[in-house]
Amino acid sequence: MSLDARVCVVGGGISGLSTMHHLLNDELTPFSPEDVLLLEAQDYLGGRIRTNRTSSKIGKTYDLGASWFHDSLTNTVLKQCIKDGTFNVKDDGRFTDKNAKVFHYDKEEAVDLNRLRGYSIISELEKYIEHYYFEDIGMEDMSLQEIVSKYVDEFEGSLTEEQKKYVIPYIRHMESWMGLHWSSISAKYSSIDFEGRDVFNLKGFDFLVKKLLRDIPQERLFMHQQVKRIKAGEKHGGRRIAVECASGFNVSCDYLVMTVPQGVLSLPSSHDYGIEWTPPLPLAVESAIRSVHFGKLGKCIFEFDNSWWDVEEDSFEILASVNGPDTKQESPSEQAHDHTVPQVFSSHTVVYNLSSNNFTESNKGGSLLILTSEPVTQYIESSPHLAWQFYKPALSKLCVPEASVTDPINVITSNWSQNPYIRGSYTALRVQDDPREIYLQLKREVPSSMPSYIRFAGEHTVLDGNGCVHGAFCSGQEEASWILQDINS
Amino acid sequence: MSLDARVCVVGGGISGLSTMHHLLNDELTPFSPEDVLLLEAQDYLGGRIRTNRTSSKIGKTYDLGASWFHDSLTNTVLKQCIKDGTFNVKDDGRFTDKNAKVFHYDKEEAVDLNRLRGYSIISELEKYIEHYYFEDIGMEDMSLQEIVSKYVDEFEGSLTEEQKKYVIPYIRHMESWMGLHWSSISAKYSSIDFEGRDVFNLKGFDFLVKKLLRDIPQERLFMHQQVKRIKAGEKHGGRRIAVECASGFNVSCDYLVMTVPQGVLSLPSSHDYGIEWTPPLPLAVESAIRSVHFGKLGKCIFEFDNSWWDVEEDSFEILASVNGPDTKQESPSEQAHDHTVPQVFSSHTVVYNLSSNNFTESNKGGSLLILTSEPVTQYIESSPHLAWQFYKPALSKLCVPEASVTDPINVITSNWSQNPYIRGSYTALRVQDDPREIYLQLKREVPSSMPSYIRFAGEHTVLDGNGCVHGAFCSGQEEASWILQDINS
Repeated sequence: MSLDARVCVVGGGISGLSTMHHLLNDELTPFSPEDVLLLEAQDYLGGRIRTNRTSSKIGKTYDLGASWFHDSLTNTVLKQCIKDGTFNVKDDGRFTDKNAKVFHYDKEEAVDLNRLRGYSIISELEKYIEHYYFEDIGMEDMSLQEIVSKYVDEFEGSLTEEQKKYVIPYIRHMESWMGLHWSSISAKYSSIDFEGRDVFNLKGFDFLVKKLLRDIPQERLFMHQQVKRIKAGEKHGGRRIAVECASGFNVSCDYLVMTVPQGVLSLPSSHDYGIEWTPPLPLAVESAIRSVHFGKLGKCIFEFDNSWWDVEEDSFEILASVNGPDTKQESPSEQAHDHTVPQVFSSHTVVYNLSSNNFTESNKGGSLLILTSEPVTQYIESSPHLAWQFYKPALSKLCVPEASVTDPINVITSNWSQNPYIRGSYTALRVQDDPREIYLQLKREVPSSMPSYIRFAGEHTVLDGNGCVHGAFCSGQEEASWILQDINS
Repeated sequence: MSLDARVCVVGGGISGLSTMHHLLNDELTPFSPEDVLLLEAQDYLGGRIRTNRTSSKIGKTYDLGASWFHDSLTNTVLKQCIKDGTFNVKDDGRFTDKNAKVFHYDKEEAVDLNRLRGYSIISELEKYIEHYYFEDIGMEDMSLQEIVSKYVDEFEGSLTEEQKKYVIPYIRHMESWMGLHWSSISAKYSSIDFEGRDVFNLKGFDFLVKKLLRDIPQERLFMHQQVKRIKAGEKHGGRRIAVECASGFNVSCDYLVMTVPQGVLSLPSSHDYGIEWTPPLPLAVESAIRSVHFGKLGKCIFEFDNSWWDVEEDSFEILASVNGPDTKQESPSEQAHDHTVPQVFSSHTVVYNLSSNNFTESNKGGSLLILTSEPVTQYIESSPHLAWQFYKPALSKLCVPEASVTDPINVITSNWSQNPYIRGSYTALRVQDDPREIYLQLKREVPSSMPSYIRFAGEHTVLDGNGCVHGAFCSGQEEASWILQDINS
């Protein structure tokens, strides 16, 4: 089967859908539905927005992908949703920025970070890292783990033994932002600039997908269409591009908007899930696509009959060792760890208490959500049945004196690292990565021999909102605007 | 009496002393003592470094002026002192950055800022202010109080009533940085970039003054010499400048380093404590000197027989009202408030517990140190005998249940606002001030008709370390280096 359209959007995640939506609903010169279509490899739309309303045994809704509106001061998607009434911060959201209750792997009681002046030490350490590369961005990159050792050595005289043991490892909460182990996180690009608080989305992020779908005719969304080959630069039935799918389905179009995840985009064309470009993408584009990595943030949710942890807390963190022997051994290479068995106390563990008074009013049962990072994500996502055995020693620390730890009645995990069409969570920077090239090339901020009618969108193509729903959403809108302008000029 | 020298330094604060020290101790081409001299208006050296070792009734040492090494990550003066062994962070310093225990003026119990997600709201508010002016630095300035109202209005939907009442006023701790009331603090320049933690100096900051004085011959330091007139540009006994003191003492010199506080520098020449320049300073310099204001940070120390507050805490803050009726009335104009009686709950109150386990090992008696800001500083400094009556309602909130409030056995206050040779604490930015001009003019980063042999140093002349000991110290070193280079080229 073969179809013909002005614009073909590849990928039905939020950036692809927002591209389609904008093309079809532009105020001045919208496309007719027959002029645009979208190809999605999987059997659902939303990509890394994945709301699960069916697996819970205690009536809860879980987002297994994106679940926060980040940067709420400047997040235009959140602002638009508030404005059009589809999201109400007080009813539908929760600010999850209460300081976590912190435990340490070899300590029974909670760690009092404030008493230990922990927050200011962590701020200082972040500032130290910033300064280190600010003077000269050309300085050799190193891992977060390495630069932390450097700081501790240099400020030895200003840190107590207790602070070194119980405060310094807290910096590893970055693992849960990047989905990487701190031995691979790029120190140079580890600083995160927050633009306001984070709003946890309680109603399920699929509300945003559904909102877009209301204005996109379903028949223009083609499911189960894995793109295998893209031919550009010759006439294909009067069009400039031919898109070939694994199913045999073909599309001829004048504009292509590629929104597949960077984890797929960076695959070699010979890979089962890779895409072959004819002619090949310019070398600078190819290399830019590979100048970042794809993080492995995952989620693991345990449901229990009752809450045996402190229900006043929003979140818990369990500190790993700084220089423990297993940390060194664990240093994960990107290939190896699917088959190694990680240790729970070798990674930093962040746990959200979804039974917190802040999250929920009813408290039927209890549920804990863990953010997993590499190499734990691959282990848990490939073997959800081993998740409780893995996390029990860490989660047991959370048990309040008057209760006792019970086994979960349900385990729900994400599957991102195992999903061949996604391959992880979102772009993240390993040591020696560079976040600028991919943006410059894919958003065409530098001269390129790539034809202008090949466009890219997705979280990996932006600097503002990188890795976030709003970044992906806006990048799709931008490409749609560009095409509308190009076609009408 | 009349003297003749190559260099005359005006002002014996830390910047004047570091200028002298560097001129006399340069490794390559130091000046001979007879070639340099320093004029100090008062009867002591150190200026706004003022360590009091005699007033305490419980054996304590207090710094009534500078008492913290700020920006400890990058503070070169601190680093040098650590290196030469004159300051040991663990023995001589304390990090005072544990979160304060917070009270509110109309609430009995402490405010749990963490439970209220207060810290992230305050960070967000700071970010909001930064964004507001980042887009366009030309935006009309407003007061901190006004921009906070703007934020609260805009994010109404994301703030609970409790947060508005008990969290938002916490932003007023900036009053204790600037020494100003939030109705006069410039919103545009309110953001403070911390370069590492703050080290409270326990040994007394005069150690730094004494260290410099060891290498400066005492006979080159002329006390009680208030400079009244500076004549430049004609030959004065073979020298380029004549400096006339109120005492009749005259100095002829080739280079002048002016280090008097901005509070004095900005006085009209007709003022009793003003300085007359002949010819007058260029208009651009005059106006730059007046483009900032002089803050009124002060200190008020109460000593007690015993500690009736929580000795585990390093500091307390007592929140004032956000929009209470007296806040509006209080809006202090710079002239009026010496004669008005301020209300304790109309300003934010920051209290350091100098009996904290963190500060001291022995606990003979107890002592609380309050940072005062305008208009309270002028009131307390002019009437120390009214200090306890003023602060008792606020400090009583700190009393732990098992104790009761007792009257102090001693009250010690600073006197900066009342000292005609100082006139406040350090430069601070009121609404519509601009921090750049004074730096550009006094550090000669712009072309100027001012003769190059007239130099300026002090906290008010620098951007890095502005208002701080290390900023003042380094500015003096810089001017000494410039003169050494100029004279030898």
